[in-house]
This record gives sequence, C-alpha cells and structure tokens, in this order.
Amino acid sequence: MTISMSSASLPVFQTALTNLSHLLAKGQAHADAKKFDSLVLAQYRLAPDMLPFTRQVLIACDAAKLCVARLAGLEAPKFDDTETTLADLIGRIQKTLEWLQTVPASALDGTEAKSITFPMGKDKTRTMLGEDYLKHWAIPNVFFHVTTAYVILRHNGVDVGKGDFLLGSNA
Amino acid sequence: MTISMSSASLPVFQTALTNLSHLLAKGQAHADAKKFDSLVLAQYRLAPDMLPFTRQVLIACDAAKLCVARLAGLEAPKFDDTETTLADLIGRIQKTLEWLQTVPASALDGTEAKSITFPMGKDKTRTMLGEDYLKHWAIPNVFFHVTTAYVILRHNGVDVGKGDFLLGSNA
Repeated sequence: MTISMSSASLPVFQTALTNLSHLLAKGQAHADAKKFDSLVLAQYRLAPDMLPFTRQVLIACDAAKLCVARLAGLEAPKFDDTETTLADLIGRIQKTLEWLQTVPASALDGTEAKSITFPMGKDKTRTMLGEDYLKHWAIPNVFFHVTTAYVILRHNGVDVGKGDFLLGSNA
Repeated sequence: MTISMSSASLPVFQTALTNLSHLLAKGQAHADAKKFDSLVLAQYRLAPDMLPFTRQVLIACDAAKLCVARLAGLEAPKFDDTETTLADLIGRIQKTLEWLQTVPASALDGTEAKSITFPMGKDKTRTMLGEDYLKHWAIPNVFFHVTTAYVILRHNGVDVGKGDFLLGSNA
C-alpha cells in the first residue's frame, strides 16, 4: 500500500486521540489517589493567558474532526463544548473517535489538491490545498494540543511519560 | 501530485524545525529585553524529572534527522550534543535543516513497507513499517518536543502564540 490522504490522516488522529484519552484517565487516577478534585487539572493553565486543559482537549478533538470533515466534504457533528470534568472530556474524545470511524477512506483519498477554506479567528478565513492543510495545519494542531494537555498533567505530577503519549502507536 | 513518503516527511520536519528556530529567537529576544541570561530558559524544565529545554530541541532535531536517514537508508551526520545556549541550539537546527535539504525525495518515496528497526532506550529495539514509523512515531515525536519547547517558553512569559508555532506553514 502507498501512503494516501486517508492513511496519513485517520489513523494519525485516531491514535493521537486514543492516547489523549489514556492520558486523561491517568490524570483522573492521580487525582483520585491524591484525593483532590480533578477539576483542578481540567482548569489548569501553564500561563494566565493560555487556554486551560479543557480547551486543549476540545481543540485537539475538533482539529481532527474538522480536518477530516473538510477534506471529505462531510458535515461533522457539532458538539456543544459543555464539558467540564475529565470524564466529560473522555466522552468528547469518544464521540469524536466514533464519528471518525464512520468516515470511509475513499472520501479522503485524492483530496491532495482540493481547496480547503477554513475560519481563522473571528472574521478571517484561510485557504490551503488539502495536502498542505493536513500536514502543515491539522496534524501540527492536533499534536500541539495533545502535547500541551500532556505537559499540563506532567507539570502537575501525573505519572505520564512519552510512552503514554505514544501508547496507541503499536502499529 | 499525490501524497508520498517524501512529501509527508521532509516538508513537515523542515517546517516544524524552522518554526522551532523562530521560537528560540523569540526566547532570546525576550531574555535580552528583560535582561536575564537566556541559559535560564535553555535549562528550564516543567517538572524536576522532565528533560530541560535544550534536550527538547535536540531530540526534535534528531527525531526528524533519524527518521529521514532510516527511511532513506542514509547515514545521518552525528552531532555531539554539546549545545548549551539558545544560539547553539539555533545552530543545531540549522545544521539539521541543511542536511535534510540534501536528501532527495526519491530516497524516501516507496518506503511505506520498509522495515525500520530503531533503538528504544538502552538495550531494546523496535521494528515498524516505514509508513507507521513516520506517522505513528517520528512525526508525533517531533511535534511532541517542539510543542514542549514552545510551552516552556510560553510558561516563562515569552510572547509566543500558536501563530508562531505554525509560522512556517505558509504553504
């Protein structure tokens, strides 16, 4: 098999989000063991003007979902961003993974040169070709937010290492 | 053009490392403006048992270099890991980028099913197929370490945002 737009996107996002769910479970277990409310982790930021942990997870989910939807020309399910607890966030990841599983590889393959226009901030858009959008926008974004979530947990004493970040990559 | 092992690797790594160099330059400018020694940033860790900033940068560089070398069957240049300052690290990124530029796309294309064996820790190895190694190991690793370096700077008040992390992605 040669690499394709589907093989370079779906399994990458599915693995990253599965690993993120695993990191969240370790965060919850740590809070339980130390007897503190895991909302402290969910609301934690590493700088006062940086997004909190919850938003890191939501954006990772949406970056993957929206990339696949835009490339495939599908309507992605809209979620309400009401998640507050780590358990809620694990549920959001699960819903995202379930939707990704419904997308056929054939809807993604051949979209290298498809023009993808997406919102940038409040009132701007950006247009990139499909392959560039995948590899220079969506994939970096997903890993940016999964890693930032990881670092927040790591900074707070959760026993995670790079093996947890790469856990699902047993390909 | 269809996506290929070269198009899914070289430009992704080149862009990530170029953006990392830009982040380092912003870290140095911040230290200069605030009149503190930028070695504080270079040695900073977000947990006592986590690798410092310098190592995050070196590993990002090596993960990209070694992935390309292994897929292409080339000998990568060895660097001595003697970098201590942000300027040293910018030089290391530059040397890595210069080597990546010498690798022809043809050496990477068609390596999807090539068996790649690489060291894991001190006395183990792991074997993955080329495409899996690229997308489930090397790319996540590079973004893991670039993002961790970013978060260290962000945590220390350097004026960086996601636009800086994605700066070179003007594809």
